[in-house]
Parts: sequence; structure tokens; C-alpha cells
Amino acid sequence: MKYRVTVLPGDGVGPEVMAEGMKVLDAVAKKFGHTFKLEYELIGAVAIDKTDSALPDETLKMCKKSDAVMLAAVGDPRYDDPKLPVHPEDGLLALRKGLGLFANIRPVKVFDELVNASTLKPEVLRGTDFIFVRELTGGVYFAKPKKQWITAKGRKATDSMTYTEQEIERIVRVGFELARSRKKRLVSVDKANVLKSSRLWRQVAIEVSKDYPDVALSHVLVDACAMQLIRTPTVFDVIVTENLFGDILTDEAAQLAGSMGMLPSASLAGIPESGKQTFGLFEPIHGSAPSIAGKDIANPVATILTVAMMLRYSLALEKEAASIEKAVEIVLKQGYRTDDIMAAGNTRVGTKQIGDLIAAEV
Amino acid sequence: MKYRVTVLPGDGVGPEVMAEGMKVLDAVAKKFGHTFKLEYELIGAVAIDKTDSALPDETLKMCKKSDAVMLAAVGDPRYDDPKLPVHPEDGLLALRKGLGLFANIRPVKVFDELVNASTLKPEVLRGTDFIFVRELTGGVYFAKPKKQWITAKGRKATDSMTYTEQEIERIVRVGFELARSRKKRLVSVDKANVLKSSRLWRQVAIEVSKDYPDVALSHVLVDACAMQLIRTPTVFDVIVTENLFGDILTDEAAQLAGSMGMLPSASLAGIPESGKQTFGLFEPIHGSAPSIAGKDIANPVATILTVAMMLRYSLALEKEAASIEKAVEIVLKQGYRTDDIMAAGNTRVGTKQIGDLIAAEV
Ligand SMILES: CC(C)[C@H](C(=O)O)[C@@H](O)C(=O)O
Ligand SMILES: CC(C)[C@H](C(=O)O)[C@@H](O)C(=O)O
Repeated sequence: MKYRVTVLPGDGVGPEVMAEGMKVLDAVAKKFGHTFKLEYELIGAVAIDKTDSALPDETLKMCKKSDAVMLAAVGDPRYDDPKLPVHPEDGLLALRKGLGLFANIRPVKVFDELVNASTLKPEVLRGTDFIFVRELTGGVYFAKPKKQWITAKGRKATDSMTYTEQEIERIVRVGFELARSRKKRLVSVDKANVLKSSRLWRQVAIEVSKDYPDVALSHVLVDACAMQLIRTPTVFDVIVTENLFGDILTDEAAQLAGSMGMLPSASLAGIPESGKQTFGLFEPIHGSAPSIAGKDIANPVATILTVAMMLRYSLALEKEAASIEKAVEIVLKQGYRTDDIMAAGNTRVGTKQIGDLIAAEV
Repeated sequence: MKYRVTVLPGDGVGPEVMAEGMKVLDAVAKKFGHTFKLEYELIGAVAIDKTDSALPDETLKMCKKSDAVMLAAVGDPRYDDPKLPVHPEDGLLALRKGLGLFANIRPVKVFDELVNASTLKPEVLRGTDFIFVRELTGGVYFAKPKKQWITAKGRKATDSMTYTEQEIERIVRVGFELARSRKKRLVSVDKANVLKSSRLWRQVAIEVSKDYPDVALSHVLVDACAMQLIRTPTVFDVIVTENLFGDILTDEAAQLAGSMGMLPSASLAGIPESGKQTFGLFEPIHGSAPSIAGKDIANPVATILTVAMMLRYSLALEKEAASIEKAVEIVLKQGYRTDDIMAAGNTRVGTKQIGDLIAAEV
């Protein structure tokens, strides 16, 4: 089969880790006899440098013509000043909204080999394997009013945490579908004791649960969830929550895996069903890490696992996806480690070398 | 000196842990020759049971006539159903707003004796000692509009994350004042890359910093902070943030101390300055824990340390406050532990017994 993939290397370590992701994709192409037509486009600081826009029209157009989009990372300290008119991150937000990517999916799996890499005790972490589903195009990120103005008493600013029942329903369904394909436990996170939007969230979650009698739904307050994630991470199977809560909790959860360099993510424009193609954007959860860019030390495993997620969700190539995940596990078992996850007794390798090893294993 | 304190034991374990707090306050009264006039009032589920209100007028009136308010815990599973017209937590929110308690202060200190009690590795935790300052009467908790309604397309709900520059300024000043009395490092947490209210927050924080040239101010995004808290907790000195972020991050941070049963908090109606009395409400951060209520196993140390915070901030009795904190440390060093922090080699004691030990030590 032939597939079109738009590739957005972005900023900082982006291009290096993307190169390794594409190396592994190429290995998959050869092994399984697929053709992946790659279109490289600009986003982030590199796009601002060349076009004054963090998301050039041309990039958005190309993404829309593709079966899937691969993104590495955006962000550059040169554009950090909040007073600047445009920021690299704006490109990311515009892409999420422009492509209707409402469902952000972040698996958090602690590999047995890396159970000592985190700041949490290994006995707490062992067996941690859950999926976060974060709403990505609603809530306080995009809702109006969103503004700063001047009153008689001085400056005032507001953001709106707004949700419609449709927005809630479709993302909660993503959670139920994923839970159904796993251990059949869904935790919905809200702040229903304080927020009206959370009460609606909880109502809708309960309504949707009628369609999934095989999945056990429970509700946890966002503050309690922030505790449970680091107290008893193994109790979770699938967690679904709104945009801002998801932003905070997924980054907290990322610490469980020891390094941001290990975690992939998918942002989908539809409800994934097994065997069905769902358009999506795929990116490692780490940032552009400018301080280590160009040094061949960045960990490309997150990007490589992101390629696997693309194969699974957007191209419905489950066998191919699993072959990458297997290869990563084998290379880790063999003791190869990039800097961020290095520990005594292992073999230190660079960005390119671990990419080569995983590609060879595929 | 003579002081008036309103005492709100509340629900669940509230009355038991409050009794131990008052036992220790009595020991302070005798040792230092003070008189504390205690007025017991209703709040939470017990108040709903007797008056149909989670915060009876009489309670609010009495609080306003006092020098300080001590609260143990509110919450009862009988009132969990979101469809009920009134919830115990409403009493807490009404009290915060009614008393103008805009500054929530939560010290997170990991006692050397309890460095193994948490799910984090002891080498990561050792030396952790910071203070969270959470804005408590603004943002998404109270701002209008805050409602659910029906549109042509179905239900919709909104909460407003709104801040004025005055609200931001006074809470940021609390952060600077506390940092000035400590290691002179203040971290302001926001989401300025996405939220207008956070951009205003950051602008105002920078403006206020001009009055505190001796304090180093830095800015961290809320998602990054959720990671850093569990990756490098010892880097923090004072952290200041808005209401909702504070709700989530302080509960995450509470896990560092091993047990919720160890952490006190203060909610102040003014900017604390050493030697000055600032009206406030003082409460342990744990909930009402109905499952262990009445069994003499709840840990009263958080409430006892809360009494110390009351003496320090609202009554300006620093020596008296320090005498309680010292007594707690000694009793922990002697190996006495309640259930929640019990470990091999220690002596297990009940709620009353650890209260007796600490009171005797004072
Ligand atoms: C860069 C930023 C706008 C973004 C977000 O807040 O969504 C990031 O933190 C993420 O989680 O992908
Ligand atoms: C009970 C609830 C309303 C409250 C809050 O969210 O502020 C609690 O979580 C807290 O942190 O004191």
C-alpha cells in the first residue's frame, strides 16, 4: 500500500530525532512492502524565520492532503518573550485546531528495563501501563472570551473554560473505546465539586457509559488524580480529561517513565476503532530541548514509538506498529541507552546509533 | 495575652484531630501564660444536618469576631451526590470568600525521619522544604459567568478564569514576603503560553518584583512545574500560583511528605509580615477521611502543626509556634508513629496518644 505522510521536523532536536523516526519507518516499508510518500514542511521557529508565520498555509494544506502527520518538536528561546507577536507554540495550537485534532492520546508505559530511571520507587512503578486521553481543541485553550482589557480599576484578563456536550461526548467515547480494547477501566477526571463545566462533563460521561456496559467508569477529582498518579500509578488503565487538566496531569505522568525521551503521543481527528484509519498528528511529548540540539545525544525513542502510533491509528497497520514496539523493547533489553536513561552496566549510544539498532531489529 | 479563636471541628476525623490540636494549644497556653477563648461552631455536613446550611450565619459571624479560625475537615459521603442542593464543601468555599481569605499558604517539609514514607526515592526528597502560596478567592472558583445552559445544539457550560491586577498583586506580594524571610527565591507558576489571565499574572509578578530586588523571581509553566515537583523538589523555596493550578499542584506536592496527615495550611486575609497579626483560617490539608473516623487512628500532627501556623501568622506568637514544631520533631525522632506513617522499628500510637506526647513535649 501507498501512504502520504507530512513530516514536520520543527525546532531544536526535532530534525535529529525525526531522522531516526524516518529511518525506522523506512525499515518498516522495506520489511512489509509499503510505500510512504514523505512531504517535509515547516512549523515553529524555523517557519517563523522563513515565513513570519508559525504555521504557514502551505504546511496546513499539505497536512490536510495526507493520511497522517509526523511532528517532532517546536520551540526556540529566541521567541520566548511573551511580548513578541508570534511564538513557535502558536503553530502547534493552530495545527491542532486547523486539523480538528480533538483527541490527544498519551500512553504511559514504564518499561521493566527502565524501572529505576524515575524519581519514583521501582516497587511503585513496576507494571505501570495506562493511556491518557486529553481533550485537545476545547476548554480554556480556545474558548471565547479570551482577552485582557482595562477597567476603571486597572487591568483584567479572562479565559473561558467552556465545553459543549458534543465536545465532551466525542472525547469520552475515545476513552471508552480504548478502555474496551484494554482492561475495561475508565477514569474520568474533573473538578465537579467546583466547576460547572466539570459537572456537565461528569453528566455526559455517565450518559455515554450506557453504551459501554462492559467498561467500568469512575470519577476522580483533578487534585486527587494528581496525587494518585504518583501514589498508585498501577491502578490506572485509561484516563480521560479536559484540555488544561490533561496538560498538567500528562506532564506529571510523563515523569513516571523516567525520561520524556521515551513517550510518544497521538492527536486524532476521530474516534479510533481497531482496523479503521483515523487521521492524526503524531509527536513525541518532549520539547525541542535546544540545549542538547545537534549533539547526537537526544533520545529518539519517543519519536520512533510515535511512528508506531501513526501506523496503528492513522494507517491501521497494527502488525507494523507492533514490530517497532518489539524492536524498541529488544534494544533496551540488550542494554543500549541514550544519555537521559543511562545507568551503570549499560552501553551508552548516541541518537543515530540507537536509531540504527532499532531499525536493524525491525 | 487573651485571644479569641473560633474552632470548627467539622466532619469525619475532624473532631478527633481537632481535640488533639486543642490539647497542644492548651499546653502552649499554660507554658507561655496566654488565654485562648475557644468558640466551637458548625460547618460542613454536621452543619447541613442541623441547619440545612453548610455555613450557618452564626458561624460566619463568630469567625469575624475572632483573632483566628481553626478548621479540621469537611466532607461526608452522604452529601456526595452532585445533584443535591448543598454540599459540605460549599461551606468551605463560602468561608474563604466570606472572610476574604485570598492567600493559602502550604508548607511542604519532608522530615528526615519520614524520608522513606513517600513513593518518591529518599535521595530525591531529602532536604525538601518549600512553601506553596495559592490564590484562594479568585479565578475559575468564583468568577462570573459560571453556569450551565441549553443552546439549540444542546447543553453547554462555562467557568471563567478571570483575574484583576489587584488580585494578582496582593497574592504575589505574599510570595515575595515569604521568600524574603527564607532563601529569597520565588517561582511564579502560570500558563502564559496559552492563557491571557496568565500573561497578566506574569506581567504583574514582574512589576511587583521591582519592590523586592533581594528576591530572585523566575517563571515556570504549570505543566513543567507538575514535573519538576517530583523530579527535583529540593530546588524550590517559595512557589506562588493561581487558585486552580494551586489546587492541583499542592495536592501533588503533598505526596512528597509521605502522608496527608503531616501537612498544615493557613489561609490569610492579608499579607503576612513578621511580628504583625494577620487574620486567617487554619486547617490541615487532609480531608474528613470518613472511613477511619472514630477509630483513634487518624494522624493529628497536621492539625497540631496547623495550630503552630495560627500562632505564627494570626497571633504573631513566633516562639510559641516554634515550640510546637520542635515538639513534633522530637516525638518523631523518638520513633512514635500513627498508622499512616508507621514503618518497621517504630512505635505505633493512636490519635490521642501522639497528641499527649506532643503536648507533654511542649
Ligand atoms: C506548547 C503548549 C502550548 C502545549 C500545550 O499546553 O498544550 C504543550 O504543553 C503540550 O502539552 O503539548
Ligand atoms: C474541597 C475543595 C472545594 C477544595 C478546593 O478545590 O479548593 C479542596 O480541594 C482544597 O484544596 O482545599
